[in-house]
Amino acid sequence: LKPLGVQLVADMHGCDPAALDDLQGVGEAMLEAARRGGARIVAHNFHRFSPHGISGVVIIAESHLAIHTWPEHRFAAIDLFTCSDSVQPDLCLAYLQQFFRSERVVTSTLRRGELRPPGP
Amino acid sequence: LKPLGVQLVADMHGCDPAALDDLQGVGEAMLEAARRGGARIVAHNFHRFSPHGISGVVIIAESHLAIHTWPEHRFAAIDLFTCSDSVQPDLCLAYLQQFFRSERVVTSTLRRGELRPPGP
Repeated sequence: LKPLGVQLVADMHGCDPAALDDLQGVGEAMLEAARRGGARIVAHNFHRFSPHGISGVVIIAESHLAIHTWPEHRFAAIDLFTCSDSVQPDLCLAYLQQFFRSERVVTSTLRRGELRPPGP
Repeated sequence: LKPLGVQLVADMHGCDPAALDDLQGVGEAMLEAARRGGARIVAHNFHRFSPHGISGVVIIAESHLAIHTWPEHRFAAIDLFTCSDSVQPDLCLAYLQQFFRSERVVTSTLRRGELRPPGP
Protein backbone atom coordinates (compact mmCIF):
# COMPACT_ATOMS: atom_id res chain seq x y z
CA LEU A 1 0.00 0.00 0.00
CA LYS A 2 1.20 3.46 -0.80
CA PRO A 3 1.37 5.68 2.27
CA LEU A 4 -0.20 9.14 2.30
CA GLY A 5 3.08 10.70 3.26
CA VAL A 6 6.76 9.88 3.47
CA GLN A 7 8.91 11.46 6.15
CA LEU A 8 12.65 11.62 5.77
CA VAL A 9 14.43 12.17 9.02
CA ALA A 10 18.06 13.28 8.89
CA ASP A 11 20.39 13.68 11.84
CA MET A 12 23.36 15.77 10.72
CA HIS A 13 26.42 15.43 12.91
CA GLY A 14 29.73 17.28 12.78
CA CYS A 15 28.27 20.48 11.33
CA ASP A 16 29.79 23.96 11.24
CA PRO A 17 28.65 25.47 14.57
CA ALA A 18 28.58 29.05 13.24
CA ALA A 19 26.29 28.05 10.37
CA LEU A 20 23.97 26.28 12.83
CA ASP A 21 23.56 29.41 14.94
CA ASP A 22 23.01 32.00 12.18
CA LEU A 23 19.28 32.73 12.07
CA GLN A 24 19.28 34.41 8.68
CA GLY A 25 21.61 31.83 7.15
CA VAL A 26 19.59 28.87 8.42
CA GLY A 27 16.37 30.42 7.14
CA GLU A 28 17.78 31.09 3.69
CA ALA A 29 19.33 27.63 3.50
CA MET A 30 16.06 25.95 4.41
CA LEU A 31 14.14 27.91 1.78
CA GLU A 32 16.78 27.15 -0.83
CA ALA A 33 16.73 23.46 0.15
CA ALA A 34 12.95 23.39 -0.26
CA ARG A 35 13.27 24.97 -3.71
CA ARG A 36 16.02 22.57 -4.79
CA GLY A 37 13.84 19.65 -3.75
CA GLY A 38 11.10 21.02 -5.97
CA ALA A 39 8.77 21.97 -3.11
CA ARG A 40 6.34 24.89 -3.22
CA ILE A 41 6.85 27.17 -0.22
CA VAL A 42 3.67 28.23 1.59
CA ALA A 43 4.94 29.78 4.84
CA HIS A 44 8.01 29.77 7.04
CA ASN A 45 9.03 30.63 10.54
CA PHE A 46 12.46 30.59 12.19
CA HIS A 47 13.39 31.33 15.75
CA ARG A 48 16.71 31.64 17.55
CA PHE A 49 16.93 30.59 21.17
CA SER A 50 19.15 31.93 23.89
CA PRO A 51 22.00 31.16 24.40
CA HIS A 52 22.08 29.25 21.11
CA GLY A 53 20.13 27.04 18.78
CA ILE A 54 17.59 27.61 16.06
CA SER A 55 14.22 26.04 15.32
CA GLY A 56 12.45 26.59 12.08
CA VAL A 57 9.80 25.20 9.82
CA VAL A 58 8.92 25.70 6.18
CA ILE A 59 5.36 24.70 5.39
CA ILE A 60 5.33 23.50 1.82
CA ALA A 61 2.37 22.59 -0.36
CA GLU A 62 3.63 19.02 -0.06
CA SER A 63 3.82 19.08 3.80
CA HIS A 64 6.84 20.46 5.71
CA LEU A 65 10.57 20.86 6.16
CA ALA A 66 11.74 21.39 9.75
CA ILE A 67 15.06 21.97 11.49
CA HIS A 68 16.39 22.16 15.02
CA THR A 69 20.03 23.00 15.62
CA TRP A 70 22.38 22.41 18.55
CA PRO A 71 25.50 24.44 17.67
CA GLU A 72 27.14 23.35 20.92
CA HIS A 73 26.94 19.75 19.71
CA ARG A 74 27.55 20.58 16.04
CA PHE A 75 24.22 18.84 15.40
CA ALA A 76 21.08 19.51 13.37
CA ALA A 77 17.88 17.44 13.25
CA ILE A 78 16.07 17.83 9.94
CA ASP A 79 12.69 16.45 8.85
CA LEU A 80 11.26 16.47 5.37
CA PHE A 81 7.66 15.34 5.32
CA THR A 82 6.16 15.07 1.86
CA CYS A 83 2.94 13.77 0.40
CA SER A 84 3.94 14.21 -3.23
CA ASP A 85 6.21 12.31 -5.56
CA SER A 86 7.14 15.61 -7.15
CA VAL A 87 9.45 16.46 -4.25
CA GLN A 88 13.01 15.12 -4.42
CA PRO A 89 14.17 14.69 -0.83
CA ASP A 90 17.72 13.76 -1.85
CA LEU A 91 18.32 17.13 -3.51
CA CYS A 92 16.90 18.96 -0.53
CA LEU A 93 19.00 17.10 2.02
CA ALA A 94 22.18 17.15 -0.07
CA TYR A 95 21.99 20.92 -0.16
CA LEU A 96 21.60 21.17 3.62
CA GLN A 97 24.41 18.70 4.26
CA GLN A 98 26.70 20.78 2.07
CA PHE A 99 25.55 24.06 3.60
CA PHE A 100 26.16 22.91 7.18
CA ARG A 101 29.30 20.96 6.17
CA SER A 102 28.01 17.93 8.01
CA GLU A 103 30.56 15.15 8.38
CA ARG A 104 28.03 12.39 9.07
CA VAL A 105 24.36 12.12 8.26
CA VAL A 106 22.09 9.42 9.67
CA THR A 107 18.79 9.18 7.81
CA SER A 108 15.69 7.12 8.19
CA THR A 109 12.40 7.05 6.36
CA LEU A 110 8.95 6.79 7.85
CA ARG A 111 5.84 5.83 5.92
CA ARG A 112 2.95 7.88 7.26
CA GLY A 113 -0.69 7.00 6.90
CA GLU A 114 -0.70 3.48 5.59
CA LEU A 115 -4.38 2.96 4.98
CA ARG A 116 -6.04 -0.40 5.27
CA PRO A 117 -7.25 -1.83 1.98
CA PRO A 118 -10.98 -1.52 1.39
CA GLY A 119 -12.55 -4.73 2.34
CA PRO A 120 -13.50 -7.40 2.80
CA LEU B 1 23.24 7.68 25.70
CA LYS B 2 20.54 10.24 26.06
CA PRO B 3 19.47 11.71 22.72
CA LEU B 4 19.25 15.45 22.15
CA GLY B 5 15.64 15.17 21.10
CA VAL B 6 12.79 12.69 21.12
CA GLN B 7 10.24 12.69 18.33
CA LEU B 8 6.86 11.13 18.83
CA VAL B 9 5.15 10.34 15.58
CA ALA B 10 1.40 9.62 15.70
CA ASP B 11 -0.74 8.47 12.79
CA MET B 12 -4.37 9.06 13.72
CA HIS B 13 -6.86 7.02 11.71
CA GLY B 14 -10.63 7.13 11.71
CA CYS B 15 -10.90 10.80 12.64
CA ASP B 16 -13.88 13.13 12.31
CA PRO B 17 -13.46 14.53 8.76
CA ALA B 18 -15.11 17.85 9.58
CA ALA B 19 -12.70 18.45 12.48
CA LEU B 20 -9.75 17.65 10.20
CA ASP B 21 -10.79 20.29 7.68
CA ASP B 22 -11.60 23.18 10.03
CA LEU B 23 -8.66 25.59 9.91
CA GLN B 24 -9.57 27.52 13.03
CA GLY B 25 -10.46 24.38 14.97
CA VAL B 26 -7.24 22.57 14.06
CA GLY B 27 -5.19 25.62 15.00
CA GLU B 28 -6.86 26.01 18.38
CA ALA B 29 -6.61 22.29 19.09
CA MET B 30 -2.90 22.23 18.31
CA LEU B 31 -2.21 25.20 20.57
CA GLU B 32 -4.29 23.66 23.36
CA ALA B 33 -2.48 20.33 22.88
CA ALA B 34 0.87 22.11 23.18
CA ARG B 35 -0.28 23.80 26.40
CA ARG B 36 -1.62 20.56 27.87
CA GLY B 37 1.70 18.91 27.16
CA GLY B 38 3.44 21.68 29.07
CA ALA B 39 5.13 23.21 26.03
CA ARG B 40 5.90 26.91 25.68
CA ILE B 41 4.49 28.26 22.40
CA VAL B 42 6.87 30.42 20.35
CA ALA B 43 5.12 30.73 16.97
CA HIS B 44 2.50 28.98 14.90
CA ASN B 45 1.30 28.77 11.35
CA PHE B 46 -1.64 26.90 9.84
CA HIS B 47 -2.69 26.63 6.25
CA ARG B 48 -5.71 25.09 4.55
CA PHE B 49 -5.29 23.58 1.13
CA SER B 50 -7.79 23.33 -1.68
CA PRO B 51 -9.92 21.25 -1.98
CA HIS B 52 -9.21 19.98 1.54
CA GLY B 53 -6.54 19.29 4.09
CA ILE B 54 -4.64 21.37 6.61
CA SER B 55 -0.94 21.67 7.43
CA GLY B 56 0.24 23.43 10.52
CA VAL B 57 3.17 23.77 12.84
CA VAL B 58 3.57 25.12 16.34
CA ILE B 59 7.16 26.02 17.14
CA ILE B 60 7.62 25.47 20.84
CA ALA B 61 10.58 26.36 23.02
CA GLU B 62 11.14 22.61 23.26
CA SER B 63 11.09 22.05 19.43
CA HIS B 64 7.84 21.58 17.46
CA LEU B 65 4.37 20.11 17.09
CA ALA B 66 3.22 19.54 13.50
CA ILE B 67 0.08 18.24 11.82
CA HIS B 68 -1.06 17.31 8.34
CA THR B 69 -4.65 16.25 7.75
CA TRP B 70 -6.36 14.24 5.01
CA PRO B 71 -10.08 14.68 5.72
CA GLU B 72 -10.93 12.51 2.71
CA HIS B 73 -9.08 9.63 4.39
CA ARG B 74 -10.14 10.57 7.95
CA PHE B 75 -6.41 10.70 8.69
CA ALA B 76 -4.02 13.02 10.50
CA ALA B 77 -0.23 12.73 10.79
CA ILE B 78 1.08 14.38 13.95
CA ASP B 79 4.66 14.92 15.11
CA LEU B 80 5.80 16.08 18.48
CA PHE B 81 9.50 16.78 18.58
CA THR B 82 10.84 17.72 21.98
CA CYS B 83 14.24 18.30 23.50
CA SER B 84 13.02 18.72 27.06
CA ASP B 85 11.82 16.32 29.73
CA SER B 86 9.38 18.99 30.87
CA VAL B 87 7.05 18.25 27.96
CA GLN B 88 4.55 15.43 28.43
CA PRO B 89 3.83 14.01 24.98
CA ASP B 90 1.10 11.69 26.24
CA LEU B 91 -1.06 14.57 27.44
CA CYS B 92 -0.56 16.43 24.19
CA LEU B 93 -1.45 13.47 21.98
CA ALA B 94 -4.34 12.30 24.15
CA TYR B 95 -5.95 15.71 23.73
CA LEU B 96 -5.60 15.59 19.94
CA GLN B 97 -6.88 12.02 19.73
CA GLN B 98 -9.95 13.08 21.69
CA PHE B 99 -10.41 16.26 19.69
CA PHE B 100 -10.30 14.47 16.33
CA ARG B 101 -12.20 11.45 17.71
CA SER B 102 -9.57 9.15 16.27
CA GLU B 103 -10.53 5.49 16.37
CA ARG B 104 -6.98 4.15 15.99
CA VAL B 105 -3.63 5.75 16.70
CA VAL B 106 -0.32 4.26 15.59
CA THR B 107 2.64 5.84 17.34
CA SER B 108 6.36 5.44 17.13
CA THR B 109 9.22 7.17 18.85
CA LEU B 110 12.45 8.36 17.29
CA ARG B 111 15.58 9.24 19.22
CA ARG B 112 17.21 12.20 17.50
CA GLY B 113 20.84 13.18 17.89
CA GLU B 114 22.43 10.29 19.67
CA LEU B 115 25.90 11.62 20.22
CA ARG B 116 28.94 9.44 20.35
CA PRO B 117 30.59 9.18 23.74
CA PRO B 118 33.73 11.28 24.09
CA GLY B 119 36.55 9.16 22.78
CA PRO B 120 38.69 7.33 22.40
